Amino acid sequence: MHALDTVAIVGVGLIGGSIGLALRKRGLATEIVGIGRRAESLRVAQERGAVTRATLDLDEGVADAGWVVVCTPVGRIADDVRAAAQSCRPGALITDAGSTKAEIVERVGLALPRGVRFIGSHPLAGSERSGAAAADADLFVDRLVVLTPEPTSLAGDVRMLSEFWTALGARVATMPAVEHDRLIAAASHLPHLVAAALAVATPDEALPLTATGWADSTRIASGDPELWRQIFASNRSSLLASLTRFEELLAGLRTALDAGDDQAVLEILRAAKQRRDGMAL
Amino acid sequence: MHALDTVAIVGVGLIGGSIGLALRKRGLATEIVGIGRRAESLRVAQERGAVTRATLDLDEGVADAGWVVVCTPVGRIADDVRAAAQSCRPGALITDAGSTKAEIVERVGLALPRGVRFIGSHPLAGSERSGAAAADADLFVDRLVVLTPEPTSLAGDVRMLSEFWTALGARVATMPAVEHDRLIAAASHLPHLVAAALAVATPDEALPLTATGWADSTRIASGDPELWRQIFASNRSSLLASLTRFEELLAGLRTALDAGDDQAVLEILRAAKQRRDGMAL
Repeated sequence: MHALDTVAIVGVGLIGGSIGLALRKRGLATEIVGIGRRAESLRVAQERGAVTRATLDLDEGVADAGWVVVCTPVGRIADDVRAAAQSCRPGALITDAGSTKAEIVERVGLALPRGVRFIGSHPLAGSERSGAAAADADLFVDRLVVLTPEPTSLAGDVRMLSEFWTALGARVATMPAVEHDRLIAAASHLPHLVAAALAVATPDEALPLTATGWADSTRIASGDPELWRQIFASNRSSLLASLTRFEELLAGLRTALDAGDDQAVLEILRAAKQRRDGMAL
Repeated sequence: MHALDTVAIVGVGLIGGSIGLALRKRGLATEIVGIGRRAESLRVAQERGAVTRATLDLDEGVADAGWVVVCTPVGRIADDVRAAAQSCRPGALITDAGSTKAEIVERVGLALPRGVRFIGSHPLAGSERSGAAAADADLFVDRLVVLTPEPTSLAGDVRMLSEFWTALGARVATMPAVEHDRLIAAASHLPHLVAAALAVATPDEALPLTATGWADSTRIASGDPELWRQIFASNRSSLLASLTRFEELLAGLRTALDAGDDQAVLEILRAAKQRRDGMAL
């Protein structure tokens, strides 16, 4: 990828900060403007070297940018994209880093002013940690980034966006936004909901007997509650469909356990091991 | 702890092998006899230095032992304890390393021959790996070991057994077997069942979109299916009670999601984060 001129990053938390660090480490942008709502977050991002300039003013921050990456929480992304489109360079390309895509793409709408285009991105690189303090220049290396172009998107934009993420070390896949949301509900949102339920379901008196198994199973429940509330709300119907499938499996396990049907329990445990071992993560 | 004379370890997999390595590393036993059902497992344990002698014959293996640790799968432990009690030194102390306790204690029974005594142990140190090849001399360091003495157990035996595990680096707690089983159902067995259900509930087409969250949440589903089938069967009623509590929480989340009750969802996610962050694992 040719080095970019000015890149604006709206929201400099873990993901936005990591994009800034990754661009700088690889010399891929001349200037990186960090835009945030809290001076303290911007200060951390600047101290980490994730941005070359920082501002609380979105209009001013995106004014010189031909590339804008919106890394705010899911519930704010569409508004931030539309606001950035008003003030960035004409013909700029805007993307995001949200964990859901269909609602965002729909709310952004097809037509942006002044030749600005938007294509959604979802880098599958998170952490239960958050904030620019936890940012990492190699957060995207070998991670998958899903792009969700619309039928009206330009092939050249998809190619440039793909090159952008590839330059940060990621693998890129492309699929429709609704397809992304359906699959990510099962792969990410349901596991988060289940981890949270498991943490809450553990009685206080059992906590001293928890060990690595419980710790692994509940780790993602440490994620930011407000961020995840927004993600769940933005992918409600797919998450509920995944939850139904999961509840049916649990009901099957309950029936087998209750009946002492050891063979049925064993078959589910075998299928689970085969599925898990196949992922080598 | 004074060094022990001859310790017999029945079952030299991950736990049995690690006990052998831990005893040798700390110079806590003169001889360590490994007893197994498969020559190949015994060969691995010997090559790893986990045992000083190995045999397929339980009677012969325990003949000189004043300490016997039964590390076979949960479904075999009670029979192996009773068999070892027939052939070990008179007055020997036998313990185990099973993940459930009440059924084992009941099946071993109160009276063992020739002054032999049994007290159950559960070292909360596992891994999704198995076998002596994965054994580790420090597996028990800073881990909790729960002892489940009966009302008729001798205080001196409890103290010696506590010193045994403490010498291997562990922390020790004591509670009734039924209490252990009730708490461990919530802390370990339910998380395993949930991880397995989550792995199976993930459609094939969603697997490419899984990342670290899914990987953490499902890691324990890689455990040995037959071992876990036995654990579930041996702790059926407590596991079902924990599962009910979990299903009720999921139902509450479903209702809140379905109704768009963001505040209720947020409160559960906050409670989960608080619970998880409190464990620092």
